[in-house]
Amino acid sequence: MEQNQTTDDMQKRVDNFISQFEEGYFSPLSMLARFTEEIGELAREVNHVYGEKPKKKEEKENTIENELGDLFFVLLCFCNEQNINLSEAFDHTMSKIESRDKDRWTKKNNEEDFHE
Amino acid sequence: MEQNQTTDDMQKRVDNFISQFEEGYFSPLSMLARFTEEIGELAREVNHVYGEKPKKKEEKENTIENELGDLFFVLLCFCNEQNINLSEAFDHTMSKIESRDKDRWTKKNNEEDFHE
Amino acid sequence: MEQNQTTDDMQKRVDNFISQFEEGYFSPLSMLARFTEEIGELAREVNHVYGEKPKKKEEKENTIENELGDLFFVLLCFCNEQNINLSEAFDHTMSKIESRDKDRWTKKNNEEDFHE
Amino acid sequence: MEQNQTTDDMQKRVDNFISQFEEGYFSPLSMLARFTEEIGELAREVNHVYGEKPKKKEEKENTIENELGDLFFVLLCFCNEQNINLSEAFDHTMSKIESRDKDRWTKKNNEEDFHE
Repeated sequence: MEQNQTTDDMQKRVDNFISQFEEGYFSPLSMLARFTEEIGELAREVNHVYGEKPKKKEEKENTIENELGDLFFVLLCFCNEQNINLSEAFDHTMSKIESRDKDRWTKKNNEEDFHE
Repeated sequence: MEQNQTTDDMQKRVDNFISQFEEGYFSPLSMLARFTEEIGELAREVNHVYGEKPKKKEEKENTIENELGDLFFVLLCFCNEQNINLSEAFDHTMSKIESRDKDRWTKKNNEEDFHE
Repeated sequence: MEQNQTTDDMQKRVDNFISQFEEGYFSPLSMLARFTEEIGELAREVNHVYGEKPKKKEEKENTIENELGDLFFVLLCFCNEQNINLSEAFDHTMSKIESRDKDRWTKKNNEEDFHE
Repeated sequence: MEQNQTTDDMQKRVDNFISQFEEGYFSPLSMLARFTEEIGELAREVNHVYGEKPKKKEEKENTIENELGDLFFVLLCFCNEQNINLSEAFDHTMSKIESRDKDRWTKKNNEEDFHE
């Protein structure tokens, strides 16, 4: 089990898989539908574990981890199809959140605060 | 703009941000709702660019890249809250797809095929 | 405020609106994207009221009721575009649920049960 | 097969089914997760019929009509749990759309237009 891969390597691994096939990537609207399907499967698992929906007997075992892995695969496909570097997109989002949301929540009362 | 970060580093950066705050991570059902909200925003952008839905004048500019970055942030939060290593989850998904779907699509007609 | 309309009347009202325009209904994948967008807006409202996500100051007031109305509009568009009678589709779903799920949950302990 | 039922009757039929059980309606966040799951199933069907995703052999036959019926069931549950009259919510949405979007699309070139 490989840990700690870069997203660039992951985007390449996905591209190696997809480029074997003539069909290539889905079109954006079809990829979005696939994304919606995957988040629906995540929703089912989350509801089983944390919500009020018991599994029907015939439903197969699955895990939140598997569903998050599947969702990530679709996210990487989307990035590849759109020529987006996910590591850059992440950087952009994090910079936004780190500045925009820095006072949105309750700061933990650290020791340093007493000395300020 | 940093490129080529590992997902482990990204999970840590997200955790550094979230752990400043007393509220910490959302509960799983609330995080799922946030995920659904983000995929809805991606859907709007994709529909504007590739579908049939024109923007209303008052709608703010946004991009598919930004929305994919935001989605990825929620995915990393989900992994952190669940103690999931995304790099491992990705490996698991890719191994499944690479074996299960290897004949699902039309293989490209490579040179080697002529010699077979 | 009209109450107690039939879904047939509602499907007609939606069709009267849409058929004024040359664009007509969205294509199915575009309509699905719109559906995903609307459920994302519902998710935001539900998370504000029942989850852990506070509103940002600039976010406009909205209500779960409005979002459910908007979702229903998209559902009716989908039915119209697909030539589906929603009243029939509902009947089919309810018959399935009423028989399939009749023992899925805990029956209330009614008085009659004591006499059986 | 009953056609042309009112949404009030439908809300009552759903309530009759649910109120047999001690569990009653799901909580809003759990209901939202169920909604997301259902839209995911709709996405799968739409993608099979109109998108680029072929069915795997083991996948069961289903139809867009069935999925829309199931989605409507969850919508009615949501309304019931929130004490929302769907017919009123629809009226509110349609009035908004009929006024707000009346010039958003290309009006069909009707005979009357020549005389104006």
